[in-house]
Amino acid sequence: MDFTGSHILSIDQFERPDIEHIFRVADAMEPYASRRRVTRVLEGAILGNMFFEPSTRTRVSFGCAFNLLGGEVRETTGFESSAIAKGESLYDTARVLSGYSDVICMRHPQNGSVAEFAEASRVPVINGGDGSNEHPSQALLDLYTIRKEMAAKGKGLNGLRIAMIGDLKHGRTVHSLCRLLALFEGLQVTLVSPAELAMPEYLVELMRRAGHQVVVTDELTASISKVDIAYSTRIQEERFASKQEADLYRGRFRLNQQIYTQFCEPNTVIMHPLPRDSRAEANELDNDLNSNPNLAIFRQTDNGVLVRMALFAMVLDVVEQVDKHAQAVRWYSNR
Amino acid sequence: MDFTGSHILSIDQFERPDIEHIFRVADAMEPYASRRRVTRVLEGAILGNMFFEPSTRTRVSFGCAFNLLGGEVRETTGFESSAIAKGESLYDTARVLSGYSDVICMRHPQNGSVAEFAEASRVPVINGGDGSNEHPSQALLDLYTIRKEMAAKGKGLNGLRIAMIGDLKHGRTVHSLCRLLALFEGLQVTLVSPAELAMPEYLVELMRRAGHQVVVTDELTASISKVDIAYSTRIQEERFASKQEADLYRGRFRLNQQIYTQFCEPNTVIMHPLPRDSRAEANELDNDLNSNPNLAIFRQTDNGVLVRMALFAMVLDVVEQVDKHAQAVRWYSNR
Amino acid sequence: MDFTGSHILSIDQFERPDIEHIFRVADAMEPYASRRRVTRVLEGAILGNMFFEPSTRTRVSFGCAFNLLGGEVRETTGFESSAIAKGESLYDTARVLSGYSDVICMRHPQNGSVAEFAEASRVPVINGGDGSNEHPSQALLDLYTIRKEMAAKGKGLNGLRIAMIGDLKHGRTVHSLCRLLALFEGLQVTLVSPAELAMPEYLVELMRRAGHQVVVTDELTASISKVDIAYSTRIQEERFASKQEADLYRGRFRLNQQIYTQFCEPNTVIMHPLPRDSRAEANELDNDLNSNPNLAIFRQTDNGVLVRMALFAMVLDVVEQVDKHAQAVRWYSNR
Repeated sequence: MDFTGSHILSIDQFERPDIEHIFRVADAMEPYASRRRVTRVLEGAILGNMFFEPSTRTRVSFGCAFNLLGGEVRETTGFESSAIAKGESLYDTARVLSGYSDVICMRHPQNGSVAEFAEASRVPVINGGDGSNEHPSQALLDLYTIRKEMAAKGKGLNGLRIAMIGDLKHGRTVHSLCRLLALFEGLQVTLVSPAELAMPEYLVELMRRAGHQVVVTDELTASISKVDIAYSTRIQEERFASKQEADLYRGRFRLNQQIYTQFCEPNTVIMHPLPRDSRAEANELDNDLNSNPNLAIFRQTDNGVLVRMALFAMVLDVVEQVDKHAQAVRWYSNR
Repeated sequence: MDFTGSHILSIDQFERPDIEHIFRVADAMEPYASRRRVTRVLEGAILGNMFFEPSTRTRVSFGCAFNLLGGEVRETTGFESSAIAKGESLYDTARVLSGYSDVICMRHPQNGSVAEFAEASRVPVINGGDGSNEHPSQALLDLYTIRKEMAAKGKGLNGLRIAMIGDLKHGRTVHSLCRLLALFEGLQVTLVSPAELAMPEYLVELMRRAGHQVVVTDELTASISKVDIAYSTRIQEERFASKQEADLYRGRFRLNQQIYTQFCEPNTVIMHPLPRDSRAEANELDNDLNSNPNLAIFRQTDNGVLVRMALFAMVLDVVEQVDKHAQAVRWYSNR
Repeated sequence: MDFTGSHILSIDQFERPDIEHIFRVADAMEPYASRRRVTRVLEGAILGNMFFEPSTRTRVSFGCAFNLLGGEVRETTGFESSAIAKGESLYDTARVLSGYSDVICMRHPQNGSVAEFAEASRVPVINGGDGSNEHPSQALLDLYTIRKEMAAKGKGLNGLRIAMIGDLKHGRTVHSLCRLLALFEGLQVTLVSPAELAMPEYLVELMRRAGHQVVVTDELTASISKVDIAYSTRIQEERFASKQEADLYRGRFRLNQQIYTQFCEPNTVIMHPLPRDSRAEANELDNDLNSNPNLAIFRQTDNGVLVRMALFAMVLDVVEQVDKHAQAVRWYSNR
């Protein structure tokens, strides 16, 4: 696809070469994200960082990615506006706000809202999450992390063995990851959940049609014993009828250092879309894993900045110019 | 007036040459707002964008205007602060915040509060709306849009025929627009509203004293049949005693494409201060007008950026220097 | 201490030479804060301005200080995030957010939270206030102001006579100030409060051990008659069991121009950590003092910008380079 001027709304837009293109650009952003270099390529450009639902992590990550390319960020951090209460349509909001910025990142609680907004927008719109529907940059940073972690171990995505663990019924991130993985071939995918929280059947089918070997199970320790990646997820309490119902499942499939040592291969990489639930009753990834070098959960969020920089640079067509407007950092940086 | 270092609190500050001065500077901002050029003239300057009442649209518009001149924006987006709850006076707030920035834009729910704040401030203050009192940049962008739309049709403001429609009793924007129009001569002004929501008599008198021909009516279709501008407004529900009372008037004076085609002259320009109420029960400007090239409502908000850039540049005395610190944009821009 | 890469969590980190070092750097920031010059030394750097409790004044002051050094600010203005509601630990929040910025300023309602956050952070963290515990930049700006006010009168800190007045039991700022003053020698400190709101005994002891002469009293007028500095404070209503209990003390120890003229030496400097409570029932510093040139309360907040610029420049190790990347301001500035 041609990224220049395009909206980024869904991972379904991408074919495998597009994914690989994004990942190459993300790799090229590394000197800037790690503060070895500074670029001003987007000097004067404005990101409209429109979060109509609060999300500190994602909002700051997008804003930071834009700043790292030299641009400015104007933002909103929740339903502060009374315009919608006064009956304003998404069409009007989009037309107005797109007059203020060069690109918009938008999060909104309602499924499909970002696509509707994008249709009226006069500038490219990146979906920062629309309800339970899509959050494409999260899916991309997950796959980017998998690729990078595998590469660090001298492997590619071919033959990848991955287990997804937890609430696979409600987890938007694992759904998106399955759809991205279906662009590749020959993977071994193990889906570990209580039967009631199983991965939707259509996604299992999608991966099988792509030629992957898919195992569905509710047995944790056997499942994580022969995988490259153990991708843990949180119980999505907010999607259950009640806290009580969610509590039935909370704390199943806990992973900690003792289980890791006993059951996993030495280099198994642990991932999680965050936030992880660190309360005693849930604790799906114990804090005693924090010093485990294979815990990749914070490399995931770091990679998110690279992927978001790549999307901005591609949509605004400045990939080739990033290095031209660069210099070394002047300040202390220990990263 | 000398704009350098001045507060912009009310349209009553301006005489006709001041308005024309602002509009000339706004015209000169166009290459920057449309992203053909980028200027860094305000590099290092800080706007204190102090919104003590939420307003995404206006807040982002001011912030964006300042960014487009190369400055930085620090802001507040509502009554987050506990300082006022702790008994802090507006005087103290102003003295403190004015130590942090080079210019302040302030919105506040209380009439007169911005002028009180400005008196204590050590930097210029621009009124971003104080209750039902003033919102001078909105009035300026309305008149600027009228001038620009007329110019595009080869006309000037002389002999302008304008209808204002809807809740003319409570609408702050139409009140301000009347006061601005009173600086000009020989206009034909038609005021269309239910009798209960009529334009205040002192404003009708003001326009008549200026030599305008003013017609007061509650008849829509006849009124819009011979005008250059049809300026529609929303029922200001929040100013009524109850929603029920507001509902009595909602949905009167609807304008849609069918009515436009049947009653308006071919080039009648449609304006609205936004937000327009798109709910079925109100719908003062139907969405079927969205593809009508004479619907100028989004050109109004775009023009708002130009007018706000002009105010910042004039108050901070950098008008002459904007172009000196400019370059072409580097990134994709489809505007 | 070596400031490069260090967290700034508590004034207990500092010895006297460190304080003097900070103050020398703050002095050097003056041309930038007063807008005679602009520096871009931190171009490309990002401050994560993480306010998990609202505070317009402190948040904007830190953000402004970072902007004045040329850096960008990403921020959060309250507990918007649902991540913590979803059970995320401070460790995870810190690891994630520290991947987005070069330095973090954090305010949080919970005592000790900022230190816990800093332990997990990969970048330097500056404590912007953690509950009733610490707010080191406030303490520094208070002492910096005292030093500067004394210098303007040709005096040093030696032999300083200071009265602290009001709710000395709950006031975090006066507690911190006492601890800083304990690094110096030979001061005369008068502590004026109702017996029930007296300065904690351990702080009185600390100052006595430092060799200061400390008087504890509930008598205002005698106490302020022979001091260089009268440091007034607000009744910390939120720390009382009830508003009624706080009301018992509100309005005691009021200072106004008439009392000042009658009892104070001509050049006594009046300070207050702000916000001051200007409601009639409290009014600890009357507005009739606003034109008194010895009212230093707004010089305090102005000095806060200098001190915060100094902390950023020292922690990021750019003190020597600030001037190298500087130029004169281009815009109107009346300060």
